[in-house]
Order: sequence, then structure tokens, then C-alpha cells
Amino acid sequence: MDNDRCFKLKRDGYSCVKIEPKVYDLLTKEELASKLSASLISWQQDGIRGVWAEVDLIHSHLIPVFVENGFDYHHAKSNYVMMKKWISQKEPDTLPPYASHYVGVGGFVLNDDNQLLVVQERFSCSPHWKLPGGHADLGENIGETAEREVYEETGIRTKFQCVVAFRHMHQFRFGCSDFYFVCLMKPLTLEINRCQYEIADARWLDLETYISNPLVSAANRHFAKCYLDMITTGEHRILPAKVTRYTNKGYDLVYSLQDRCDDELPHESETGFKL
Amino acid sequence: MDNDRCFKLKRDGYSCVKIEPKVYDLLTKEELASKLSASLISWQQDGIRGVWAEVDLIHSHLIPVFVENGFDYHHAKSNYVMMKKWISQKEPDTLPPYASHYVGVGGFVLNDDNQLLVVQERFSCSPHWKLPGGHADLGENIGETAEREVYEETGIRTKFQCVVAFRHMHQFRFGCSDFYFVCLMKPLTLEINRCQYEIADARWLDLETYISNPLVSAANRHFAKCYLDMITTGEHRILPAKVTRYTNKGYDLVYSLQDRCDDELPHESETGFKL
Repeated sequence: MDNDRCFKLKRDGYSCVKIEPKVYDLLTKEELASKLSASLISWQQDGIRGVWAEVDLIHSHLIPVFVENGFDYHHAKSNYVMMKKWISQKEPDTLPPYASHYVGVGGFVLNDDNQLLVVQERFSCSPHWKLPGGHADLGENIGETAEREVYEETGIRTKFQCVVAFRHMHQFRFGCSDFYFVCLMKPLTLEINRCQYEIADARWLDLETYISNPLVSAANRHFAKCYLDMITTGEHRILPAKVTRYTNKGYDLVYSLQDRCDDELPHESETGFKL
Repeated sequence: MDNDRCFKLKRDGYSCVKIEPKVYDLLTKEELASKLSASLISWQQDGIRGVWAEVDLIHSHLIPVFVENGFDYHHAKSNYVMMKKWISQKEPDTLPPYASHYVGVGGFVLNDDNQLLVVQERFSCSPHWKLPGGHADLGENIGETAEREVYEETGIRTKFQCVVAFRHMHQFRFGCSDFYFVCLMKPLTLEINRCQYEIADARWLDLETYISNPLVSAANRHFAKCYLDMITTGEHRILPAKVTRYTNKGYDLVYSLQDRCDDELPHESETGFKL
């Protein structure tokens, strides 16, 4: 039983408040409805600009209460949906949007005989040679995704060298856009042991053969040409450096043009640390 | 009134089915509950692997029916939540995740006197000189975001030249990661007319002064050094080329190392078109 007529919530740095799932245990649906509408009036008078409400799976029956009070959805993760309402009448809605991009990585793995590691996917409309790779897992850096995905799909162990190219594609899935990073990878092993579930075929193909192969898309052919341009025209590579985060806790990777190392390894940055 | 005991839905290329919002108008909550549980048994027998259910705002009272049948959330946009359930007992859940990355862009705008356009934001914990910029709008290319944001924040018209660097940051917001692209921009106008709402101050600062300014973060100092490295050590730039999409409808931008043009303009690709 909760006797307050309004929610007492602390405003954040943007003059917004957030209702957390724990409060729902104390309220019936009717009590939430009454308290929410009283709170919205009170918040507006107090200069609160926006209201967030996280509703977890077990309280999904309360979602209509928020809808009836003018909330809509912001985003959802597997166990909750985040609802939002902008209540300031003086300022335009400045609630930040949710993530809009997928990130995928392809490994451009070349052996000493200038052969490229290529795969055909099992679930594909038509046979098609492409680079091993896949979606970045949460918190993974590009090179880590490439090393993991190449190994999962082909059994080949590799080491990240540099970024060869990246593609920006819109309307990729669910209306979201996609970045696909192609990474030059040095193979540490050579024997293919493909993932039986995901991959129909995996081979080492001569790079020149690959470029002229009819089962290679324009984008994949272009990536191969980007690689050839990169190695023939200079010593510059797109390489990461560790740079201190603005919070001073931890670091982020910043990719930029750097002179290639003998081993194609990432450089030390003056403002960062050796990888 | 819908007399069928089960939903009759067409399977997609991944042997999944999707329940669309239009069917909810024909059903009471109790009818949906009965039909959904009968359908789940039938689909599993038929080898369906996963079930999607889009629930729009006006049918949010039906969400608990899906929760009670073992669904959880996949993602939400302002007017719907997408629910999902993996029902194959033979194969692991391969439903694709939702977008995981924010994309922001900063404009590195240098005038002929080697002065950099910098701003201080109004909503910021402490005064801090940074590059004008912001989130990419849906469907925008990097250079377009930079041109729009620089103009919105400072009133300066610019033209995209090349990518100087990009930062990959994890745990940025709502557990998602972030890519921040720094773009070299050529100013087409010079008179600052800042956005009064978002920007507290906007100035042209000598690049050398900027790099040593205490109100500049390690990352922004690093971006300036990436620019100096780029112009002093070679003729290569990170530039986009248009490359035909795999569907053969339209094109995507692929960024890679290319020789700089006199005007720092994007190149024509052998596999693409002139921008």
C-alpha cells in the first residue's frame, strides 16, 4: 500500500524523471492509473520535461495504463519495454533516440600464397562466395568480432591487422542502418574446419580468381580492390589507438590513418596506449 | 469473429511466422489466448522455428497474452512493440538481434587561417570545447549528418571532404555502443550564428591553441592529431565510393583509403559511380 498521491522521483540532469519497475509491486492497476495522472500534472507544474517508465515482462498488464496517459514506446530489450512521454509545453521533445545501427564485420584473411578465405552460407537464396564474418556481440571491438567469427565459421585462427574498408547501408533490417567493417586478418592456422550448421562451403581461393568470380557481389569485389589499392599505393593503414575516455575511466579505440608496422600491428598513440 | 482454431500464416525464408496487428481487431483477449496456444502447438509440429508478434499501441492490453505464452520482447518503436518466441526444440535460437549501435558525427571544420570551428554545449556538466555535430538521422550518410549538424549548431555551411577518424565506444547509452565519425569539412561560409537553444558558445580557435587547451578532452585532442598526421604524412584519405547493392537496386557507400583529390572530393570507384 502506497499512500502518496504522486510519485516522488528525483529529476536527472535533463530535468526528466524515470519510473522504475520496483514501484509496480506496491500498486494495483487502478492505483497506478490514479497516481500516474496526478503525477503528470504535478511534474508539469514543477518544470519536469520528460518522463521515462520502464515496464518489465511480469508487469506487462500495466502497459495500457501508460498508453492511456499518452506514453508511447522508446525501446525494448528481452525483459522490459521502455515507455516515454514528453510533457514540457515550452520546449521541443529532446529525448534521445535509441540505437539505429547494426554492426557487422567481415574477415579478409589472406594466406602467404595470396589466397583469400571465403565461405558460402547455408541459409542463402543463391550460392554466393563471401567473407567469413557476422554481427558484433555486445561490447566487442571490430578486430575481436572478426577473430571470433572467422574462427566460428571456418576453424581458422587469425590476428587482426587493420581495417580495409567499411560500408554504410540503410534500410538494412527493421528500418535500421548497418555498418559492415572489412578487416585484414593474418591467418595463424590454415586448415579449414567449417561450421556445419551455418556454412555450406569454405575454401581458400586465389585473390585474382575471387575478384573475377561470377558468384561474388559488387561489394565483395570492391572490398578486394580496396585491399589491392591499400597495399600497392602506400604505407598507410586504418589502425586503432587507445584513447582515454572523457570520464577518465577506461579507454575507447579511435581508428585513423597511421603508418603500417612491419607486422601490420596497431600503433601506439601519443594520447593513448599501446594495444 | 474468426472461426479458425489456429492462425494461418505463411512461413518466411527462415521458417518463422509473424502475427500482424490487423488480426487483433477480430479477436477478444480470450480468443487470442486460445488461438495463440493452439497455434504454437501446431507450428511446432509443422517445423516452424520462431514466431514474431507485432503489437501496436492500441492493442497493448494484449501483450500479457503473449507473455503468458512464453514470448518476450525483441524491440520497440514509438507505436509498436515486437515480441518473439523461439519454438524449435531441435535448433538453437537464431533470431537476429536488434540494432546495437548509436552513430554520431563531428565536423572538423578548418578555415584558411587554420582555425577550427568549436562549440560549447548548453547542457553539459562542465565547460568543454568540442566539435559541432550530433546523431545521424535515419538514412543519413556520414557527410550529410556533418553538414546538417554543423549548420544547425553554428550556422556555418560546409562541404564534406573525408573521414579523419572514428571512435568505437561501448556502454554508451541504454547498454548500447556508439560510433563517432570525425569528418574534415570545408567551410563555405565563415560567420557564426549559433543555435541559442543547444549551444552556449561557438568560435574559430587556432588549431594549435585548441590542441593545448585544457577544456579539450583527450579524444578531441587525439582527433586533431589524427588530422595533422593525415595531412603531413601522405596523400591518402578515407573516402567513400558508391557501390551497387547486392539487390542490384540502389547503392551503398563504401569508405576506404584513396588518393586525395585536389579538392578533397570523393573518388570514382571502378565498381561504383562518381559521387
